[in-house]
Amino acid sequence: MKSILCSAALLAALVPGVAIAAPEAVSAQDVAWDIVSGLTTEVGQRLAGSEAEERARAWGAEKLKTLGFRNVAVEPFIMRGYVRGTDTARIVSPAPQSLAVTALGYSGTTPAKGIEGELVYFASLDALKAAPAGSLAGKIAFVDHAMRAAQDGAGYGPYGNVRRQGPSIAASKGAIGAIIRSAGTDSHRNPHTGVTTWAKGVAPIPAGAVSLPDAQQIARLVSLGKPIRIALTLTGRTTDNLPSGNVIGELPGRDPSLPPILVGCHLDSWDLGTGAIDDAAGCAIITAAALRAQQGDQTLRTIRVLWAGSEEVGGFGGEAYAKAHGGEPHALAMESDFGADRVWRVQSKLAPANKALGDRIVAALNPLGIVFGAGEADGGTDVGFIIEKQKLAVIDLNQDGTRYFDLHHTPDDTLDKVDPVALAQNVDAWAVVLGIVANEPGRIEPTG
Amino acid sequence: MKSILCSAALLAALVPGVAIAAPEAVSAQDVAWDIVSGLTTEVGQRLAGSEAEERARAWGAEKLKTLGFRNVAVEPFIMRGYVRGTDTARIVSPAPQSLAVTALGYSGTTPAKGIEGELVYFASLDALKAAPAGSLAGKIAFVDHAMRAAQDGAGYGPYGNVRRQGPSIAASKGAIGAIIRSAGTDSHRNPHTGVTTWAKGVAPIPAGAVSLPDAQQIARLVSLGKPIRIALTLTGRTTDNLPSGNVIGELPGRDPSLPPILVGCHLDSWDLGTGAIDDAAGCAIITAAALRAQQGDQTLRTIRVLWAGSEEVGGFGGEAYAKAHGGEPHALAMESDFGADRVWRVQSKLAPANKALGDRIVAALNPLGIVFGAGEADGGTDVGFIIEKQKLAVIDLNQDGTRYFDLHHTPDDTLDKVDPVALAQNVDAWAVVLGIVANEPGRIEPTG
Repeated sequence: MKSILCSAALLAALVPGVAIAAPEAVSAQDVAWDIVSGLTTEVGQRLAGSEAEERARAWGAEKLKTLGFRNVAVEPFIMRGYVRGTDTARIVSPAPQSLAVTALGYSGTTPAKGIEGELVYFASLDALKAAPAGSLAGKIAFVDHAMRAAQDGAGYGPYGNVRRQGPSIAASKGAIGAIIRSAGTDSHRNPHTGVTTWAKGVAPIPAGAVSLPDAQQIARLVSLGKPIRIALTLTGRTTDNLPSGNVIGELPGRDPSLPPILVGCHLDSWDLGTGAIDDAAGCAIITAAALRAQQGDQTLRTIRVLWAGSEEVGGFGGEAYAKAHGGEPHALAMESDFGADRVWRVQSKLAPANKALGDRIVAALNPLGIVFGAGEADGGTDVGFIIEKQKLAVIDLNQDGTRYFDLHHTPDDTLDKVDPVALAQNVDAWAVVLGIVANEPGRIEPTG
Repeated sequence: MKSILCSAALLAALVPGVAIAAPEAVSAQDVAWDIVSGLTTEVGQRLAGSEAEERARAWGAEKLKTLGFRNVAVEPFIMRGYVRGTDTARIVSPAPQSLAVTALGYSGTTPAKGIEGELVYFASLDALKAAPAGSLAGKIAFVDHAMRAAQDGAGYGPYGNVRRQGPSIAASKGAIGAIIRSAGTDSHRNPHTGVTTWAKGVAPIPAGAVSLPDAQQIARLVSLGKPIRIALTLTGRTTDNLPSGNVIGELPGRDPSLPPILVGCHLDSWDLGTGAIDDAAGCAIITAAALRAQQGDQTLRTIRVLWAGSEEVGGFGGEAYAKAHGGEPHALAMESDFGADRVWRVQSKLAPANKALGDRIVAALNPLGIVFGAGEADGGTDVGFIIEKQKLAVIDLNQDGTRYFDLHHTPDDTLDKVDPVALAQNVDAWAVVLGIVANEPGRIEPTG
């Protein structure tokens, strides 16, 4: 472990201005940047089920082979996704102006000429829930909220529900369309997309998100007290039988009889940005760290990387992986899918018998300034299905999410938002953990 | 002057956390916020020559009357402008992806299905200028640059020329289209629009600007060494005989025989944002300060406000004002058209006989932390024509422009970008200057 903890990349991450000298550290850092830069530039936006996502799989398989991974495979599957159309919104009266809007995934579809209706303002999801049955007939609901930035991304649960549930609730009360304040924390005219879900028996209605400045504008217009009419055009469609797939690869361990360590990320992105923080960075981090963990001696256990497809539209890649590989033993799973800012906390889900293993991980991360968190690790969507199926042990390395929801699912999720120093710190932290768990000779127990 | 220099709004601006108590100061600050908020919300985007700009004139005239201005008038004129159409751009190969683009004002028009061509990369305007004649035949030029933020906005001269001149130079060498890196300093997927100009004898070609992250993406793709094909659709049109107009109003002075002080801003905005910093804030500042200067005793000289139309597309409002009012005497002109961040510097253009007047202004601004600048004041586009025609004295209050070109001409120019504390400091500084020049009994001399 000493060579990892003292790596030049780690020093560079911790001490700004320190030059990077050790060749092996430079190499691992270069791998991470090479992946996040290459995937976002040479492929670009890669919506689940699109031709671009197919190009991403080819790019990913080629990249893993070039980096020395073995058993590299593309594992195709078919899924239901959302194909974007034209997205526009405008205030018709009392102050005609255009709004920055995006359709939500699985939105209903408007005619090409759009729909128009009176806007009904709700300050929160609870206010919408309290609206009487039928009260939104023929109207377009607007749901505001007050999400704030947080290091652990805590706001995405409750405020993300405005997006996940709001349109369905509005539809159930008769609305012909729904618009939400983006589930985000920035101040730019870049709306945040993401999937919405429809309760059983509720027919989808057109559902979009406006940027935060536009939501504030709507709230100000509402405060003027005049009726507001709004026009909405969202021509995208929910589409069955779209092609997607996972890419997997392995760095074989010395003892093939031991269950492997599974590390996951997702290859698809929303289509507004190029998915740099969500989640090219995750693939960069897990892959560079796996290589780093193998750079001295070959690890005892195999490390398998999963670059999953179609995470954004429903976690279909993780589900397909669990279906395809649920019969194979796994020791432990980890995932990186929360950007590339600094890892500040480690959480675990380990059986009582593996308490000593957990303690060693926490102690090894301590010099990197990473604190132990008392919460239970959950992995993430891409490894969650196999974790649940096999009751796997899990380690989470939590990234600082303070600015994550400034960028999440927006056009602004681009390469320039990745801080190379923070990316290197992620690789350092992951390499520390993989160096321990992939060299663990004892049994890593199931957790339930 | 004492009541102004000690105003609570000024204290609030200088000492964060100090509550605002003095009623008259609250009032002036409220006027400024009321104007910038009202114009951007109740009117919204207001492109020169549009129905929205007409609504802005009606809104402005009503607002000035409500605030107690006299001789309020809308002065219509006809001009040539640019009517936006559909703006899209995408990389066709080698890595298909969409780009965030805006047409530049006076761009040529593509067919509805767009144009496509090989992209030729130029790292700078000089590199484009050096391209051989005819070398761009059938191609689309991309012009990159390296504009950086500056307190005095110094980059807008040279790097703004990439926008102003680049497309015409590309056309003169045979290009079928031109794309520039936006003349801006931010890192968001929001391109910066603005006018481009065509040299005599050069037929306009489609000309757009991509956001800065998109420009970086293009540069990275270029570095891969493969030919790049790009598709561009910009269907807007240069249009003659569009209706526009100025709004003027006066706060009469005690001595109507003395030439008035003219203070200007512009009412139109680009259509991507709501023109909060460019230039609703300017109208807010000059108007609130004029009222403040009159709040104690009526000033000696009349203060005339000019809310000009069609500044963005060629300064037509300022030209129309000079034509309509060039026969009337004016004493001195000022303009606010550089956002609403803190005033940090004062510059003047005064005849030698008025040196003492200039010294008094500098001394009065010193307690607000505003430094004297040795450069020559120029007013701005809206008052520039009358300044030139009558060789008027000018005072400039320079705002901090460090973040101005993050927002300038983008969708992000919205109300949330205006800092109320900095806005109040602007009003304070302007009120100090207007309090001096509008009470100057001596002759304010022409400068040339």
